[in-house]
Amino acid sequence: MQVIDGGVNAAKGFMASGAEAGIKYKNRKDMALVYTKSPAVCAGTFTKNVVKAAPVLWDIDIVRRGEAVHAVVLNSGIANACTGEEGRELNECMAAETAKTLGIDTKQVCTASTGVIGMQMNKEAVARGIKLLKKDLSDSRKAGTEAASAIMTTDTVCKEAAVTLKISGKTVTVGGMSKGSGMIHPDMATMLGVVTTDAVIGSELLKNLTSKIVAESFNMISVDRDTSTNDTFLVLANGEAGNDEIIQGTKECEDFAEALGYVAVTLAKKMAADGEGATKLFETKVTGAGTKDDAVVLAKSVITSNLVKTAVYGNDANWGRILCALGYSGVEFDPEKVDITITSAAGTLKIVENGKAADYSEDFATEILSKSSVTAVCDMKQGDCEAVAWGCDLTYDYVKINGDYRS
Amino acid sequence: MQVIDGGVNAAKGFMASGAEAGIKYKNRKDMALVYTKSPAVCAGTFTKNVVKAAPVLWDIDIVRRGEAVHAVVLNSGIANACTGEEGRELNECMAAETAKTLGIDTKQVCTASTGVIGMQMNKEAVARGIKLLKKDLSDSRKAGTEAASAIMTTDTVCKEAAVTLKISGKTVTVGGMSKGSGMIHPDMATMLGVVTTDAVIGSELLKNLTSKIVAESFNMISVDRDTSTNDTFLVLANGEAGNDEIIQGTKECEDFAEALGYVAVTLAKKMAADGEGATKLFETKVTGAGTKDDAVVLAKSVITSNLVKTAVYGNDANWGRILCALGYSGVEFDPEKVDITITSAAGTLKIVENGKAADYSEDFATEILSKSSVTAVCDMKQGDCEAVAWGCDLTYDYVKINGDYRS
Repeated sequence: MQVIDGGVNAAKGFMASGAEAGIKYKNRKDMALVYTKSPAVCAGTFTKNVVKAAPVLWDIDIVRRGEAVHAVVLNSGIANACTGEEGRELNECMAAETAKTLGIDTKQVCTASTGVIGMQMNKEAVARGIKLLKKDLSDSRKAGTEAASAIMTTDTVCKEAAVTLKISGKTVTVGGMSKGSGMIHPDMATMLGVVTTDAVIGSELLKNLTSKIVAESFNMISVDRDTSTNDTFLVLANGEAGNDEIIQGTKECEDFAEALGYVAVTLAKKMAADGEGATKLFETKVTGAGTKDDAVVLAKSVITSNLVKTAVYGNDANWGRILCALGYSGVEFDPEKVDITITSAAGTLKIVENGKAADYSEDFATEILSKSSVTAVCDMKQGDCEAVAWGCDLTYDYVKINGDYRS
Repeated sequence: MQVIDGGVNAAKGFMASGAEAGIKYKNRKDMALVYTKSPAVCAGTFTKNVVKAAPVLWDIDIVRRGEAVHAVVLNSGIANACTGEEGRELNECMAAETAKTLGIDTKQVCTASTGVIGMQMNKEAVARGIKLLKKDLSDSRKAGTEAASAIMTTDTVCKEAAVTLKISGKTVTVGGMSKGSGMIHPDMATMLGVVTTDAVIGSELLKNLTSKIVAESFNMISVDRDTSTNDTFLVLANGEAGNDEIIQGTKECEDFAEALGYVAVTLAKKMAADGEGATKLFETKVTGAGTKDDAVVLAKSVITSNLVKTAVYGNDANWGRILCALGYSGVEFDPEKVDITITSAAGTLKIVENGKAADYSEDFATEILSKSSVTAVCDMKQGDCEAVAWGCDLTYDYVKINGDYRS
């Protein structure tokens, strides 16, 4: 597997574009299109929130029916959630307009929206955007980035990742884009994300691999424990690489899963690091847990604690809060066995040994925590299961961004 | 029932004091004592965190054995949590020293600590504090407040409440104090709190009433979803009012439960309003839920959402976040039935009707939200169960306080 520069149109046969439709924002791109001429098998995971946005309901139906997908049309600014029948009609319009423009079927178009909940979108703006998207469709590197930029809301960086690998002598590419900065919490595919690949793979296997990979990437990040109404993650495989079909249980399947996993984890980490107001990526690795589920719950509990997150912001090795967050996670363990080590580009330091303060330098701990990417390793000494979760610090800017997001 | 000015020594036979022991803070009171000469039956609820502080383990044992209690000794500054065997020894010392000074048995002394996790307390400071506490013990109004002040950490106001009621012709008083401002989350008795009463009541009934009341007061508040290692709530009844013993199922029992409930809810609301960095109390009432459990889960989900909390801080009627928080709570409901109304001293306004924006004035919504106590009523229209939860807004100051709590 080789990491390459690229995004949602890195794989063969995929084109992309971004456009200024004027849905809510002024003077910035707010609609994106991903298109494949060859029909793609499609897998997806969606928000578990009872309140589901219109595009989520639309895509769930498409993925469930297992039809070929030719396009994904996305917008930022307005979430098209809590918009009732009017919102569902507008969403169908968005798909139909895209289909008409591209000469495909309405039910071959997935949709995704992100932004303010409860506002209705302007139909004319959407139609205008779709025309522009069609005009600018391209397989260029730049076009992929324009699509990725157009779905940003409070994101500060555009999120893309891509890899290539060889399967039965053919080069297969997996690339993707995602957005997400607030309302991010691991209990689902937490964001908008589109991954494309030219691999030849069946629909069932793609769905299985997608579920598995989402569990270890997007479902392991959190910015604020708020699970959105719009979260959508789609994987499209158009088969243009011409490899022998990937079969479950083979080495090729493992390799492909690794590539898909790399792209998903890379996008997920970029989202956590770019959490609203965040100054750093905060990774928590739990080792020595009794079960895999325990490891997952423990790791998530640490990265979601507001008190841990503010301490990380303050470069304060306040390990009591980490131990406390492990303690209220719901997992049983012996607190007097736990070791905690922090690590970053500045070095590695054990701060807790057997549940009590290790003999460590606070100055060195602060130096480690002051880097832009910090990891806490919690060894539970209860078994041999592990999990990794990614979050960010809680800062003044998170409050600022969300105190007046709508204005 | 009549609300009176008073606290932990309002009830007959209780004395209290606060003292500067110099455990961690400089120039402020950091130890408190509550004492009753007549033996008191004692009920308590404690943190569900796996990581339990030494005083919590000590009190759980006392309450479980059902012995009479004569005193509660408390300190702020250091939590005596994650301190291992050394911490447990120090805690026993604190009880023993208090018992010796008061001429009672060590196992008749409950302990409670709050502050930084992981630090060891200084034995000499504790001994010095206990001597001062003994010297200043008094049933004066001022002494109660000094005890309540001494247990504050990041609290900005001292929390007391008291009521009187008549039972079998005798005046019964219930009074209490609590602290808690950060690491506050509803899944337990979330804080330090001591309620005293001179009522004659049996141990089993007092325990039952305490559990019931905690569920509807302290367990319905949240500041930051972080459940502490030290949470302790104790109720002491010394019987000095001389009423006929309160029996379950009687009118007298209902009246007493109401009085105990009033004191607990008042203290709980004071804690939520004084949440770290908070500028206002944010109450959420869920009506029309299918079951009581659903109502509780829904109400808590709204008050714990960081996104709702920041919007409340910004006086922004961003109702989509409230609906979103109801939606990810885990409770099933029809989002297109929900009504949301906000209310405060400035007035009442329906902002959501049947899951969509009602036709309302944003200016009036902002005016309502700008008051120091704000309520959101969410009518689910699924049944007739209700619950109320209390939280606060999430502000710059929460980040400031917790970015460098230890320094």
